[in-house]
Amino acid sequence: MSKQVAVILSGCGVQDGSEIYETTLTLLRLDQLGIGYRCFAPDIDQHDVVDHRRGEAVPGETRNVLVESARLARGEIAPLTELEADDFDAVILPGGFGAAKNLSDFAEAGADLVIHEDLVEAVSAFHEDRKPIGLMCIAPVMVPRLLGRGIAVTIGHDPGVAGAISSMGGLHRSCGVEDIVVDFENRVVTTPAYMLATRIGEAATGIFKLVDRIDELMDL
Amino acid sequence: MSKQVAVILSGCGVQDGSEIYETTLTLLRLDQLGIGYRCFAPDIDQHDVVDHRRGEAVPGETRNVLVESARLARGEIAPLTELEADDFDAVILPGGFGAAKNLSDFAEAGADLVIHEDLVEAVSAFHEDRKPIGLMCIAPVMVPRLLGRGIAVTIGHDPGVAGAISSMGGLHRSCGVEDIVVDFENRVVTTPAYMLATRIGEAATGIFKLVDRIDELMDL
Repeated sequence: MSKQVAVILSGCGVQDGSEIYETTLTLLRLDQLGIGYRCFAPDIDQHDVVDHRRGEAVPGETRNVLVESARLARGEIAPLTELEADDFDAVILPGGFGAAKNLSDFAEAGADLVIHEDLVEAVSAFHEDRKPIGLMCIAPVMVPRLLGRGIAVTIGHDPGVAGAISSMGGLHRSCGVEDIVVDFENRVVTTPAYMLATRIGEAATGIFKLVDRIDELMDL
Repeated sequence: MSKQVAVILSGCGVQDGSEIYETTLTLLRLDQLGIGYRCFAPDIDQHDVVDHRRGEAVPGETRNVLVESARLARGEIAPLTELEADDFDAVILPGGFGAAKNLSDFAEAGADLVIHEDLVEAVSAFHEDRKPIGLMCIAPVMVPRLLGRGIAVTIGHDPGVAGAISSMGGLHRSCGVEDIVVDFENRVVTTPAYMLATRIGEAATGIFKLVDRIDELMDL
């Protein structure tokens, strides 16, 4: 029986959902390592729908996070409420604005962010069971509220976001795009990905390291 | 000056646009090889919008191929009418039903398929200049009408699609998911990708081989 990892999505597209390349590269590396995976997403409306060509929200348009995430998962996806930590050995959250708009409200509330309750419930169970948790791009900003204070993470080196993490009681470590930050005590692995990446190859290097480290931590 | 490749998209999602993993893996390999790329898509309405969770078309919903393709390109995309073969050394078309619904009407018309005129114009120029052309998944079904008769391609081993290619005057070669078919004379490279893939790692192996071969052909 191979290791199994849950991947939590937040839509399909960097501006209003999960970052597509980050998600695909995560799934690629899991599969290359012989690790099974299953995708989950909350069955809620997106915060907004962004025209990715113009970079502007489309007034009045509504899309569902689970339905759009299904594009990224080729239809193989389940509602986040069905995610049981007992069935998995680790959990990974790709980034994209969906993490800051749909899974939490960081994009609007900053350090006053509130996290979607289904996400808190699902991910807390992994943390309590001391199962590894990976987050990338902007998603690590949720860690102080999601998992607790004093956990080392990175979002690269953006001063505003790093400051928000600190003000919530988190520990921010600066990190290059091709590297990861590991909090061994709390079994949390993070990488900047498209907070810093200028090329997909750079993002891939950091994300592959994150998945490789999650794989190692599942053995410990 | 690095080599430059044009990538032609048809939406964002396997059921009504470009296959997301095929596109991402293509861009990853191009970047890993130090090849520059730019994405293009036609500025037209999608044939349909499919709810990828349920696998069913959504009645009355309309999305634009260029706008949705922009999700897959992180906003860096131009209308297909702006693609000039003179600016690029090769062109690659990922698959997904968008190739059979938006770039052509193969999904409805079968061997009577008609290809969008902007695609014919753009890709014909590459062919006339003897620049390499890569196609994956269902996209190779367009080759007999797009580039001419007698060109060897693969879509895996689906008898219906292979028969349609033959009836249009194409040459279909059966091929495994992790391999490619190369027509050296016509400089056309194809791989089955998600016509056959059951895991993303399988698709990656074939797609990486396709991009590597396109890279070699650009030197010849």
